[in-house]
Amino acid sequence: MYDVIAFDADDTLWHNEPHFHETQRRFGELLSRYHAPEWIAERLYATELRNLRHFGYGIKGFTLSMIETAIELTEGRVSGDEVRQVLEWGREMTTAPVELLDGVADTIRALAGRYRLMLVTKGDLFDQEGKLARSGLGDFFDVVEVTADKTPATYAGILQRHGVASRRFLMVGNSLRSDVLPVLDVGGTAIHIPYPLTWAHEQVDPSALEGRPFVQLERIGEVPGWLEAAGAQG
Amino acid sequence: MYDVIAFDADDTLWHNEPHFHETQRRFGELLSRYHAPEWIAERLYATELRNLRHFGYGIKGFTLSMIETAIELTEGRVSGDEVRQVLEWGREMTTAPVELLDGVADTIRALAGRYRLMLVTKGDLFDQEGKLARSGLGDFFDVVEVTADKTPATYAGILQRHGVASRRFLMVGNSLRSDVLPVLDVGGTAIHIPYPLTWAHEQVDPSALEGRPFVQLERIGEVPGWLEAAGAQG
Repeated sequence: MYDVIAFDADDTLWHNEPHFHETQRRFGELLSRYHAPEWIAERLYATELRNLRHFGYGIKGFTLSMIETAIELTEGRVSGDEVRQVLEWGREMTTAPVELLDGVADTIRALAGRYRLMLVTKGDLFDQEGKLARSGLGDFFDVVEVTADKTPATYAGILQRHGVASRRFLMVGNSLRSDVLPVLDVGGTAIHIPYPLTWAHEQVDPSALEGRPFVQLERIGEVPGWLEAAGAQG
Repeated sequence: MYDVIAFDADDTLWHNEPHFHETQRRFGELLSRYHAPEWIAERLYATELRNLRHFGYGIKGFTLSMIETAIELTEGRVSGDEVRQVLEWGREMTTAPVELLDGVADTIRALAGRYRLMLVTKGDLFDQEGKLARSGLGDFFDVVEVTADKTPATYAGILQRHGVASRRFLMVGNSLRSDVLPVLDVGGTAIHIPYPLTWAHEQVDPSALEGRPFVQLERIGEVPGWLEAAGAQG
């Protein structure tokens, strides 16, 4: 039924959001003598959104946004040492170990023999290529697409570039906003596998999902069984 | 003689290094009460090289390296306002107007009808896609490859992915290190068009070029004529 199965990477194949979450927690601690953690989180998020059009997604943009927020929230009183600390966290994130989600290695290995596999991940090219290399999964993917964003136009471009008909394209990911809705928009099939932590920016209003047919599974290990059942039906 | 003509982007199609150069000049001025400009430039370069493996190429990594250097060189005394200033320069660079080099628009337009054109640029995906969009040249390229680096393996991968024989591949760029030597290494042809300013990291030792056959032209506008002459000979 499908020629290509595409996977999102962050929080679909490997844990990602917890690294941002943990850094953000430390950032709140660092500035705790100035403000309450909720207010710090809110201001940081506002800075990140404002900077998206300048910096895009990824660790470097996040680090720059933390520094900017620290200056703003302390009215410039943040010390050089504190900024250095934030920089160090950013640098650590770029080399954090890549920890696969349960069942990922087996599932990808099993599917790689039977389907063309694609990795479609949004974010910073340098971050994403580094994580893929460290994940040990690189050889299983026929195509790796790192994109600046994941809009319907992004997916349409990928399908066209690789000569894939949209009804033969299945996307698996944790983000309704990035992995599900835009894929449905271009006529593909999408499996949503929720991850416990989701960045506010990736959340969608439930009304956006109304009447949109997509599949929800709990674990990536269920994908091969779902494909078999779908194939038997189709 | 060639199936694909590939172009580097920064300082081949549009001016780029002058933006970094100018920001670096301002950065030196900002810290002038602490250190001499030469020393500041030297420390910044050392920080950039050290951070390459964490941040890769591009404006965000450069901005983070400036902030780190400022803290280091002032022993943490740099003020919040000064760091904010550095951040602002980084943000400005991400939206700087894209100014094409002389002859680029005509040359690309002329070649686009007759060859498959590729853009092969190293750096930050978000920066490079933004510049390509603002350049107005996007539609002329059949393939756009933004890569984290430009090694022989990078070029070999591109040739393989797009089914191009290396002897039918011509690369045009301003960097001997990134656009010429690795292309020769994989059996392609390279045209070097020097740009007046070159980042120290992109410079190569002349001995690396000894006996390596590549073409040097002064302006991109000479490429179509060179292709005609080469075709007549071949």
